[in-house]
Amino acid sequence: MAKKQKYLVAPNPKNKFLTKSISGYDENNKKITTKVIKEKSLTIFLNDQEIVTLMSIGDHPKYLAIGYLLNQNMLKNNDIIKKVEFDNDIDVIVVRTKRKTNYEKKLQKKIRTSGCAVGTVFGDIFDEVKKKKLNSQKKIKHKWIYEISKKINLTPSLYLEAGAVHGCAIIINNNPIIYMEDVGRHNAVDKIAGYMFLKKINPTNKIFYTTGRLTSEMIIKTIKIGVPILISRSGFTSWGAELAKDSNLTLIGRAKGKKYIVLSGEQRIDYK
Amino acid sequence: MAKKQKYLVAPNPKNKFLTKSISGYDENNKKITTKVIKEKSLTIFLNDQEIVTLMSIGDHPKYLAIGYLLNQNMLKNNDIIKKVEFDNDIDVIVVRTKRKTNYEKKLQKKIRTSGCAVGTVFGDIFDEVKKKKLNSQKKIKHKWIYEISKKINLTPSLYLEAGAVHGCAIIINNNPIIYMEDVGRHNAVDKIAGYMFLKKINPTNKIFYTTGRLTSEMIIKTIKIGVPILISRSGFTSWGAELAKDSNLTLIGRAKGKKYIVLSGEQRIDYK
Repeated sequence: MAKKQKYLVAPNPKNKFLTKSISGYDENNKKITTKVIKEKSLTIFLNDQEIVTLMSIGDHPKYLAIGYLLNQNMLKNNDIIKKVEFDNDIDVIVVRTKRKTNYEKKLQKKIRTSGCAVGTVFGDIFDEVKKKKLNSQKKIKHKWIYEISKKINLTPSLYLEAGAVHGCAIIINNNPIIYMEDVGRHNAVDKIAGYMFLKKINPTNKIFYTTGRLTSEMIIKTIKIGVPILISRSGFTSWGAELAKDSNLTLIGRAKGKKYIVLSGEQRIDYK
Repeated sequence: MAKKQKYLVAPNPKNKFLTKSISGYDENNKKITTKVIKEKSLTIFLNDQEIVTLMSIGDHPKYLAIGYLLNQNMLKNNDIIKKVEFDNDIDVIVVRTKRKTNYEKKLQKKIRTSGCAVGTVFGDIFDEVKKKKLNSQKKIKHKWIYEISKKINLTPSLYLEAGAVHGCAIIINNNPIIYMEDVGRHNAVDKIAGYMFLKKINPTNKIFYTTGRLTSEMIIKTIKIGVPILISRSGFTSWGAELAKDSNLTLIGRAKGKKYIVLSGEQRIDYK
């Protein structure tokens, strides 16, 4: 049995900047107070260029900005980050790199992609992901799959406190070590990507867990991060499953209770 | 008791273009075949201008395109639609209006908004929604709230067939009459908006149900459509709740079993 790891990062449901108490009524017309998630905007600059404004719960702006830029191929794995400046009053974060950057053309092209399920991924990222093969020999034990779900569900979280967020986690064996939440599941995975990049965490022996659905964009981000095993309690899309097969990603979905379905990379599952 | 209405539009889980059978393994390492959702792209043109490419399940492209354009304020309620041309081979749809349109500047601005939870809403839409007050006297009976959830859950759907989609419905009293699904919850609400616009359906005496979370963008779209009551089984964000209060939208969330919470417009609920 693997040694138990503590969380490096975990949700902070007691952070008063992340939730708000609102009064309302329950099903018996009784006045109640309930906690809801706060959304706030974050505008990301890369050097002198405004890249995007996104809505986030507002924690970890640095990891979110860097993960977002990595997952858009605007930051490269060998980029040297000189400085990250966050201005809390105007919700702006500026990432400064040694390399000079100009993504005007890419931003022009971005006009044309939108939507919730898939939308912020460019052609060059598809090309990169299609070439990438995850060749990690990492195995996942059958029982870890439900142990992981259970541990994440029992960890104090904004989801348990206020609902309306998605969560993503990085796991060693059956121990979650990084757990991030956000209103958008893509923000949550971007924060994880940013954290792993800055802390130089090796992805090849880790497992990735998401509460969100396994759409193509989620698969692409997992492959880009380089984690060989992806678990979700939610379902699949056919394009996501194809991308996972092409890249040899172990794709485990509909993981609820003791049930799950594997659509790709089943050789990494140790059923004993 | 209201007369029972049949669906005007309902999911078609047997449509073979919407799902795909994929082989995989279950938790006992037994080979299985499962259905998953197909994603496909749809590029929307308004007259001679390319507006967006989004990922959708691919049904109802016409309603999706028109609803998307309405919810982006690129189509106005009094616009005359001359023609809608859909090319199935290249997944392109062109909406032609009598009014000449040019949204170059708006598309430029769009570069800067992204993300899953909120992202495709512009400043002018916020301004419009902030001014709008829903003054419908429509009431919803306490028991309708769970009757509606139950009816929608029991309707044959892509969700029951393959998972990984969100659903939205328009309801008269306790009878769902329009039910659309998509990989993105925003596509589902856009399709409903397009359908209601084209079929000239009065929104003021209807109820809107979504399986998705009640984020600001979902609230904004409901207010724009003009439906006075919004129900979700999912949770709230604080900004969404504020927008609902400002516009006098009845906002009912966390509707599961016989429980629910109302954060705004509780005068429309008949608790008897």
